[in-house]
Formats: sequence, structure tokens, C-alpha cells
Amino acid sequence: MQDSKLMQILLKRGFIWPSFEIYGGVKGFYDYGPLGSLLKRNIEEAIRQTYVIEESCFELSCPTLSPEDIWVASGHVSSFNDMMVECTKCGEPYRADHLIEANLKINCDGKGIDEIKKLLEKLKCPKCKSMLSEPYKYNLMFKSYVGPGSRKITAYLRPETAQTTYVPFKRLIKIARDKLPFGVLQIGRSFRNEISPRQGLVRLREFTQAEIQFFVDPANKEKELGEFANLNLAILPKDGKEINITLGKALKQKIIRTPFIAYHLGKAFQLFTKIGINPKKLRLRQHLDDERAFYSSDTWDIEFMSKELGRIELVGISDRTDYDLKAHQNLSKQSMEVTFNGKRFIPHIIEIAYGVDRPFYCILESCFVEETGKKERNIFKFPANIAPYIAAVFPLVTKDRIDKKAEEVFNKLKNQQLFVLYDSAGSIGRRYARADEAGIPYCITIDYDTLEDNTVTIRYRDSMEQERVQIDKIKEKIMGK
Amino acid sequence: MQDSKLMQILLKRGFIWPSFEIYGGVKGFYDYGPLGSLLKRNIEEAIRQTYVIEESCFELSCPTLSPEDIWVASGHVSSFNDMMVECTKCGEPYRADHLIEANLKINCDGKGIDEIKKLLEKLKCPKCKSMLSEPYKYNLMFKSYVGPGSRKITAYLRPETAQTTYVPFKRLIKIARDKLPFGVLQIGRSFRNEISPRQGLVRLREFTQAEIQFFVDPANKEKELGEFANLNLAILPKDGKEINITLGKALKQKIIRTPFIAYHLGKAFQLFTKIGINPKKLRLRQHLDDERAFYSSDTWDIEFMSKELGRIELVGISDRTDYDLKAHQNLSKQSMEVTFNGKRFIPHIIEIAYGVDRPFYCILESCFVEETGKKERNIFKFPANIAPYIAAVFPLVTKDRIDKKAEEVFNKLKNQQLFVLYDSAGSIGRRYARADEAGIPYCITIDYDTLEDNTVTIRYRDSMEQERVQIDKIKEKIMGK
Repeated sequence: MQDSKLMQILLKRGFIWPSFEIYGGVKGFYDYGPLGSLLKRNIEEAIRQTYVIEESCFELSCPTLSPEDIWVASGHVSSFNDMMVECTKCGEPYRADHLIEANLKINCDGKGIDEIKKLLEKLKCPKCKSMLSEPYKYNLMFKSYVGPGSRKITAYLRPETAQTTYVPFKRLIKIARDKLPFGVLQIGRSFRNEISPRQGLVRLREFTQAEIQFFVDPANKEKELGEFANLNLAILPKDGKEINITLGKALKQKIIRTPFIAYHLGKAFQLFTKIGINPKKLRLRQHLDDERAFYSSDTWDIEFMSKELGRIELVGISDRTDYDLKAHQNLSKQSMEVTFNGKRFIPHIIEIAYGVDRPFYCILESCFVEETGKKERNIFKFPANIAPYIAAVFPLVTKDRIDKKAEEVFNKLKNQQLFVLYDSAGSIGRRYARADEAGIPYCITIDYDTLEDNTVTIRYRDSMEQERVQIDKIKEKIMGK
Repeated sequence: MQDSKLMQILLKRGFIWPSFEIYGGVKGFYDYGPLGSLLKRNIEEAIRQTYVIEESCFELSCPTLSPEDIWVASGHVSSFNDMMVECTKCGEPYRADHLIEANLKINCDGKGIDEIKKLLEKLKCPKCKSMLSEPYKYNLMFKSYVGPGSRKITAYLRPETAQTTYVPFKRLIKIARDKLPFGVLQIGRSFRNEISPRQGLVRLREFTQAEIQFFVDPANKEKELGEFANLNLAILPKDGKEINITLGKALKQKIIRTPFIAYHLGKAFQLFTKIGINPKKLRLRQHLDDERAFYSSDTWDIEFMSKELGRIELVGISDRTDYDLKAHQNLSKQSMEVTFNGKRFIPHIIEIAYGVDRPFYCILESCFVEETGKKERNIFKFPANIAPYIAAVFPLVTKDRIDKKAEEVFNKLKNQQLFVLYDSAGSIGRRYARADEAGIPYCITIDYDTLEDNTVTIRYRDSMEQERVQIDKIKEKIMGK
């Protein structure tokens, strides 16, 4: 990924870069630079609009560092482990199952520790051929301690936002005035201490999630599909045969089991399209029976087929049943039951779990166009709603009061709360090229005519067409589209 | 704070609550609930607009977990410590200097470890009168490890965003095309393992910062004060005599030493006012010579005088000189020098360091009004730009197609991307009361007349006046104000 043309431009233009470079870097951490952080924020804002406004969800924001109890209840302390082994000489760490699979062609799923130990005895370090260490359990959560001395308590950086949304369920249901269903969006950082992350933004140790938890009546997972009924999608059901089918038909044929899940697959697909991900590269994939968490009754992913990185899971939609609330009830001894429609029960949870870094990457890959021929240029064809900057303002020259006038236009647009960029360096052609590489939809040039008649040239990124527009009409022109 | 009327409403209405309640809670952690997280987001957005749009800053977003080197260079590993002592029997931890100050009336500033040990020998545990332990150094950073087994590296949760902005300085200056000054905003979580946090949102172990770093030419800290020259403020200079004076005069009289700092004090004051903090409760305070970090040439805070919590520092503006970049240059062996205006030097940094949780609290305190008399009500008089919801939609009754019509209006406003709430429960009076407590500026009621003439009643939160408005004009009415 590092060497691709796309990645080169991302680095050069400051969308993202590996964190802590001056200290040699640490794998699995990226900085979002000036263009990247604005783009990422716009993605988060699109998710917020989709769920908080359109779907009337609550929003919630919890700490990322959280006490051990939560992760004991959720099962992460006991089960969020990889079996590891390392070379006694060069120190290279390996996942035991990966090493066995790669060298002995034996699948380790379901194998016990003793069996794995035996298999490892047959192997040496693939790098330096030395002896391997005893295997050890490696928990993927980052551990820390809160408070001083003998009063300190164990805490973990959350590996997902979901559990931190479940913990205050009793507060949330009160705010929902004891009515179901209701949804809760949480956008924030999560952490996984990956062993050796290699795939750029696809596998990070610190990443951003946007997870929505819908608390529903177990007896009612209905939802009107509405416009999504006729949405025709590539679907890979668990039987392994990919088909093109509408969501309505997939539901009728029981490929998708619950209307609630079908609706939200449509919603997520629509959102991805809106923020600039190529819909032709998206596929709905149902989890296999042995891949699904044991408590989940149905799980679907939407995947993006990346040219550079293969299959990327963008969102997971899962019926988690009452598993999580029950687990927290058991450990905390606090009832998670509600009374609704005359019955008393623990609500089921249907989760829509987005990553934010992965859609970010897929937008970049989808929107990146290398135009060749006479006019060579690199463009990010971002939709206007997620472009880091909506417009760039250029003075044709920096003399004869043209730059003064350009600054006036720039300030006017800023006062209208638009994210605009000012660029006066180099030829207009070079400035267009830079703006294209930053994915800026509109370039506004102030020239000698502007001084006469208060019009500017708007140049459209994708078509490269130009148009003369009154200064007072710029906002309408660029935001109305 | 927990028992105040304000805090009761915040908990009841779900602005915030202590995190992890079902597991007994951990001090210094709060959840932002549905109203709180929207309000907090609006504060962050106001900061972003102020610095990214108005001041043309870059934005940057870095990981919160970061390798030890950064915090060695910054001095946090060696100096971000408190000397602690705890009771050998009941385990209660104490800050050694606080304990000595409280019981022996001796100030420990500048005292060495041996002297402190001697003083502690005279003391017992104030709680149970038992012996105290040996004093030990307690670092306020949360520590963790990245990576597996023998390859793991030490990392810390950042205690401030600032250093993570300095580390990629060489990438940032390239994006700024080697020109000074430029500013970089970073909004994100930071962490401090406080010993025993007690003041609610004012002292959190995980909190949100919005810190702006301006990289400037050491020979040029000029800045036109513009409109801020005539801004009259309460100022407490380091000589200890509070005065009311304009920023222009404070600069002329050298109370504030650099125009750049004077300008940004004005900017921060203006921002606080915009987001609803009572300007009469704000004061500019200059750090004393022995309070200022040794490398800083001048440091100012803006403080809020809270009824409930005393003096709250909302933003710190500090000339950090070349201290930080030099420190990273020394440890990383990467040059941080730039060539600008024909000279080669390490830029100086002027930092504007906002907390987000504290302004959040001060907005709530500033905007909270208990109206008594005939009409008793609790209101949050949030400015419209930061209110969690801009409007609430009420069907007068839930029959005769009035609720259908109300849903139509609700959906129409949602399609206009407005954060609106639907409430059909209880009398209109009770719904107004709930909306007032949520700080919603406008309540829109759909009644029988609406079915006839497509008009609704808009009720204004602060004046309680009502007005009849065409459905098509609602957005203009509520967003135009």
C-alpha cells in the first residue's frame, strides 16, 4: 500500500501519514493531517446526520479507558486472546495458528492448547530457524491502571464502543421513556493491540468507530423497508453463492432473516454511496454459521472490494440478542429488564458497527482518478458534502489590488461558514492541479474583470468547465449543487 | 457539585452522568449522554469554525496512545510526577505536599525528596492515625505496552495533544509551504491519572482538549488587534492588582507582552461569549513568574468564576518559545530548523490550549436559569448555535391526523438537516417544560389550524412568546435568528 500512487499522493498532500515518524514510528498508528482530518470529520458528520437526524437515534460519548469489570462481563478478558509464540533467538513474534496453518497446512480452529503445543514442537522460526518459545496467551486489549499505589484498579482501553454503550442502558431507557425500539450512536476511538499490523488504515491499533446499538423488543424486529425494498445489491449469503437481488426479495426469500437488518443494510449501503464510495465495489456478505459469534442469530457485513487491499469489511450488522445486557446484569447484579407492551424482558440489541478509518480509505480509493492523455492530472472526485474544502480562492496575480479583492472574497466565504482555502502561489494551472489533488470541488479565480463587475470565474473540478458568477451568488452556486 | 439543582437536572435530563455506574463507578470519568454529546459536539464545532475557518489553521488528529520517546523528550516521564504517600493500614493515598501543607503549614515548593521525607516522619494518616508509607513518585500518565512479548514497547496515553502536534512538525511545515506563521488545531482526548479527582467535569482522568499550536518566527510575534483593541476586560496581571482595561491599552502598557497573545486572548474571549459563557464571569489572569513553565516567556489564562466550583481555568495561552521543538530535535536527531526570511532557526510556538469539558460545564452554569414566581421553570438559555436540538415538534393531540401532520413537519425539518426532536407525550405545558430543560430554543406545535392553513405555532424558549408561521418558513425563522 505504501508504494502505490494513491498512497504517495495521500502522503504528499498531507491526508495521512504514519505517526511518530521522527522516532522511527510504531506500526498501526496514523496521523490524520489537514486534509484527512477534515475529510474524516465530514464522514463522521454524515454518519451522525444519518442516525441522529434521520433515524432519531441518541448520541452518547463514553470514556475509552474503562474498568476491568466491563471487559470481564463482555468476555474480552477471557476470550479476546491470540495464542502467540516467539523465536527464542531473534524475538520475532508469531500467531501460533497462523504459523501452523502456513507451515503444516493444519487449521487450528477449535484445537486446544495441548494440541497446539504439540504441533508447534515440529516448527522452527521461519526467519532464523531457531527454537520457538512456549506459546503464551496474548490479550488484544491495552491494559493500564487507574489511581495510585495500593488503590489502583485495572483498566483497559476499549476494544469497541459497544460495551460502553450497554453499561449505562438503564439511564438510556429512562431517557427513551421506557419505549422500544431506540438507537444509540457512539463515535469514538477504540484500541486493539494487534500483533503486527500491516495494512495501513485497514488494521490500526488505535482507530475510530461509529457504532449504533438498537435496543429492540425481541418479539418485534419489524421495519418497513420503504425505498430500500427495490434496492438491487450484490449479496453473498452463507450458502456461498453470490447473487444480485433486491433487499425486498432477499427478505421474502429469507436470505436476510429480519426486516430490521434488511432495512439497515439498505441504509448503510445508501450512506456509503452518499459519501463517495463506489457502490459497484460493495457487497453484502452473510457470516457463516461457524464465523458468527455464538450468541448472534444473524450477522451481515458490507464489504468493499479494494484494488489495493482486497476485501475490506466496512460495517457489520449483527443481531446480538440479549447476550450483552444479560452478561452485564449477571456481573453487576443490576437488572437490565424492562416492562414494555405488558411484558417484562431484557431487550435484544441489533448493532450497526462502522469503522471510520476504513470508509475513509475506501472513499479515497473510490474517488481517486488519474486522468491521462493531453491533460494529465490526479483528482479526488469527492462529493461536495464530504470534501475537506468546498472551494479554493485564487487571485489571478498578486498585484493591482487583485489580491486585496481575492482576500475580500475569501473572507466573505469564511463569514458564510464555508471551509475555503486561499492559494496565491504559482500559476493558475499549478493551483488547479493542487486543488484537484486535494479534491476541492470549486476553484474561484479573481481577475481584472472582478474589479470592474464583481464577477469571478468558478472552475468545476470534474468537468474543468468554467463559469462567470457574481460574488454574491457564489455560496448559492457551490452549496446548491 | 453532585447535589446542586443544576447537577440534578443534568443527570435527570441525560446531559452527563458518572461513567460505569453499574460497576460502582470510577472517579474522574463521565459519560456524555444524548443532550450532552450534541452540546459538546457543537462546542467543538464552534472551536473548529473559529480556528480552521476564521484563522485558517490546519486541523490534525493524532493517536492518543503514543510511544515513550515523545514523553521523554517533552519532560513528562521525568517531571509529570506527584510525590505520594499512603497509609500503611487503610491504604488511603495522599499527595505528600498537600499533606504537609495541610498539617504542618509548610509549603513544599522547591523542596527535595530528603526534606519531604523528614517532614512526613512527623505525620500520621489523617483518617485512621496509622503510620504512613515511604513516599513514592507517582507519574500522572497512564502507561501501557504496544506489541507482543519481548517486542513490546512502552507507551503512554497522552497527557496533552500539544506534543503529538509537535512531533510531525516537519510534515506540517511542508504543507504550509515553508511559510510562518501557521496554526494547527487538534481536538481530541487526553488523559491524566489524577490521584483523587473530585470536581466533576473540571478534573477528569479522560478529557477532551482543543489545542492550537501557532508556529511563529521568533522575531515576529506581531498581530493586528483589530476589533479586539477596544475590548474591555477584567485582567489580573502578575502584580496581583485586578483592573478593567482594553486589550489595546494592556498591550501598550506592556501588561500583555506580545500582540500575538493579546489578539488571541481577545479571540478566545469572543468565542466563549459566542457559545454562551457569561462574559461577566470571565477574567484574564497572567501566570506568576514562579508558576509559569520555566521555558515560557509569558502565559495567560482565561478563568471563569463559577458559583459552584470557584475559579475554573478555561484556556491557557502560552509562549512556549522553541523549547518543545528543540527537545524533540535533541532526542530524535531530526532537525526542526526552518529557513524563512533568509534566516535559519527553530520556530517558536504560541499555544492556545482549550479544554472542552470545562467550557461545557461553564455554558451549563451560565445558561441555567430558574424562573420563579407564577410560572416556575428551569431553562437552559443556550445560544441557538450550540443548543443540542434547535427545535422540538409537538402534535397538539395524537388523533384526527394531527400526529400524521406533525410527523410530516418533523420529517421536513430533518430533511433540511436540522437537529429536531419529536415529543407527543403529555400536555403541551409539560412538553414545553421538558424542552426548556433541554435548552431547545423553539417549540413547534401542530394543531387543528395546521390542517387548514399549513401554519404552526412557534413558541420561543426565552420570551415564551408565540407566533404563527407557515410550515415552509420554519427553517428561515429559526435559523435566521
